[in-house]
Amino acid sequence: MDSRITVTHVRVRGFHLDGYGHVNHARYLEFLEEGRWAFVDAHPEFAKSLAAGVALVAVNLNIDYRRAAVMHDDLEVRTCLSRLGGRSGTVGHEIVHRDSGEAVVTASLTFVLLDQRSHEVIALDGEWRERLAPLVTALDSTREPH
Amino acid sequence: MDSRITVTHVRVRGFHLDGYGHVNHARYLEFLEEGRWAFVDAHPEFAKSLAAGVALVAVNLNIDYRRAAVMHDDLEVRTCLSRLGGRSGTVGHEIVHRDSGEAVVTASLTFVLLDQRSHEVIALDGEWRERLAPLVTALDSTREPH
Amino acid sequence: MDSRITVTHVRVRGFHLDGYGHVNHARYLEFLEEGRWAFVDAHPEFAKSLAAGVALVAVNLNIDYRRAAVMHDDLEVRTCLSRLGGRSGTVGHEIVHRDSGEAVVTASLTFVLLDQRSHEVIALDGEWRERLAPLVTALDSTREPH
Amino acid sequence: MDSRITVTHVRVRGFHLDGYGHVNHARYLEFLEEGRWAFVDAHPEFAKSLAAGVALVAVNLNIDYRRAAVMHDDLEVRTCLSRLGGRSGTVGHEIVHRDSGEAVVTASLTFVLLDQRSHEVIALDGEWRERLAPLVTALDSTREPH
Repeated sequence: MDSRITVTHVRVRGFHLDGYGHVNHARYLEFLEEGRWAFVDAHPEFAKSLAAGVALVAVNLNIDYRRAAVMHDDLEVRTCLSRLGGRSGTVGHEIVHRDSGEAVVTASLTFVLLDQRSHEVIALDGEWRERLAPLVTALDSTREPH
Repeated sequence: MDSRITVTHVRVRGFHLDGYGHVNHARYLEFLEEGRWAFVDAHPEFAKSLAAGVALVAVNLNIDYRRAAVMHDDLEVRTCLSRLGGRSGTVGHEIVHRDSGEAVVTASLTFVLLDQRSHEVIALDGEWRERLAPLVTALDSTREPH
Repeated sequence: MDSRITVTHVRVRGFHLDGYGHVNHARYLEFLEEGRWAFVDAHPEFAKSLAAGVALVAVNLNIDYRRAAVMHDDLEVRTCLSRLGGRSGTVGHEIVHRDSGEAVVTASLTFVLLDQRSHEVIALDGEWRERLAPLVTALDSTREPH
Repeated sequence: MDSRITVTHVRVRGFHLDGYGHVNHARYLEFLEEGRWAFVDAHPEFAKSLAAGVALVAVNLNIDYRRAAVMHDDLEVRTCLSRLGGRSGTVGHEIVHRDSGEAVVTASLTFVLLDQRSHEVIALDGEWRERLAPLVTALDSTREPH
């Protein structure tokens, strides 16, 4: 797989479920956040900036729930940087069943980077563009019609 | 306020926050789910159908994070049925600061109704349309440009 | 009821449940934390101290799960200060079904107060004792054998 | 390490934290539940029984919070069966910092096994005793005074 896509795994446990026996729709956001932190871990320069007082702040999330996940399912969370704009970027996410490859969730999270001292949104130019532009790619699912 | 809009309240507590001291973005989905259950409570016929084996299943959520909420904030969650299609409907949500009225979150959740015995999506016609069509309305924020 | 006991209410929702259709055992800790914050809200001097840089830090929790709670249950969370020691105190908690009065959960949480600047545990004497000692009381359930 | 002790790992993420920047006390219960499911995964006969309609139901949890965990900490969750009684058993848990080995949390969870059809507590004799008795062991921390 494209090295710009970070892959993490999660096995569905009892505390992830809701009363229907399906993973609760809010829990997927934790799986996605896990994916983003793993992405940061995989890109040490990005991690260094966050540690130095830059916060990644969500401004929009658009999430498709495509198939239910249930107890004991092994899920794969795929995360990449899918768009880089002037003041915001987008993270692409996909959660699939590891065995079947079927999509459970696809999502796009639009974010800004915030300077935690000045509380100003950081423009994604200069050093930031040099750092992030080479990471932009697409997940398969974002190319499929659905 | 329009009687078709259900209003619930939540005070932000320590366990709602993330490491930045802001309400974690996944927690808002629990506030919204709380809003939907309160909406169901306010419409007994709807509640009766759900109790009889109809599940409301989320298929898409589109959520704008517009302003951070912090410890001790009093939030108001507004929930309504904003669209009724042939096989799916949309719930409109808005979370505002009670004191200032400023929007914290706006969201649209698209759902289907699932017959839990047959696992078939229920068409929103006949009795269901008679029951739900009179409830369709809009939140102020969904009329505003943003 | 004893005015030193703070009462809050929660209705069980889908996101509180686990795969068995019961409130997940971890969720009760959020209900208890809600109870403690409501207790703080009800005692403004205590709230003022916390706002000024004192953290209430849990050191032990002992919780009995006595009866399952399920979807739509209306629960009452009762919270009080049940013990005041030299360097730690204990909060007593009880969660009951509102209709039947039956106990769902009983719990004791032992805490220290931490000065967030010095990171030192605050001795519960002098002003703190004057403030807290009059609040010490017991929940019915903590007097019952069980 | 003793093969009867199941070890799982978790890295602390933003959504695990509370407003103090520490792992929220309720989140540890999810880490412990994760440890129990991993223990079940590691003992297929146990997993088979649970799949066939036996529920592990918590009746008491006693948890010591010994040291705060913060963002990016790598934690190790150790889980074993520490006691087997006539009608209940106890699971021992320990969460330590992987680098320092320092204890973050120690906990004991007392459970019963429930037949989900009859809703009766299962006596831990006969086949169940043969299956579970060889698994009983102790974590280091449960031998230490603290």
